[in-house]
Amino acid sequence: MDYSKLNGLIPAVIQDAESLEVLMVGFMNERAFEETRRTGFATFFSRSRGALWTKGETSGNRLEVTAILVDCDDDTVLIKVKRLGQGNVCHTGERTCFFRTLS
Amino acid sequence: MDYSKLNGLIPAVIQDAESLEVLMVGFMNERAFEETRRTGFATFFSRSRGALWTKGETSGNRLEVTAILVDCDDDTVLIKVKRLGQGNVCHTGERTCFFRTLS
Repeated sequence: MDYSKLNGLIPAVIQDAESLEVLMVGFMNERAFEETRRTGFATFFSRSRGALWTKGETSGNRLEVTAILVDCDDDTVLIKVKRLGQGNVCHTGERTCFFRTLS
Repeated sequence: MDYSKLNGLIPAVIQDAESLEVLMVGFMNERAFEETRRTGFATFFSRSRGALWTKGETSGNRLEVTAILVDCDDDTVLIKVKRLGQGNVCHTGERTCFFRTLS
């Protein structure tokens, strides 16, 4: 992967493997991406906290990886997941972070 | 939209409105996002060229916007599109930029 374009980060698009809904976009550094592959659960790098976090580590709403796709220029990943726990991905309690449509 | 987290840019996830395939991820600055909304065709900011570009402006494979969704913290957009022209989104000739699966 090419981490050079965003200061060590790549965007990771999280898509529900079954419904194909886009659930969220997070950022991964190399270590977060390795943790995601090693553990099978989506793990991100928090830019505000400067630390790794595994989605759902406290809520239980973890994201189990079912497939990882890499884009043509190696700077973005698309991760297909199964939603665990209550299945809410957004911190607002919605299933997806993309719950608002612009008119 | 909050353009402050990535030096004036937001990631834009492009999803086929019909098949729900994720086709590509690009970046938009405020002007690119306004152009996208004004024209109805996905327009990005090229970080390498430092200029706006409308996807498919030369190939004809433009992306007609059918819906724009905003994420919970206003720093990412999900744009649903109809693929025009030959429908290839990736510069490699593939339909989507995410055509490689990691094992």
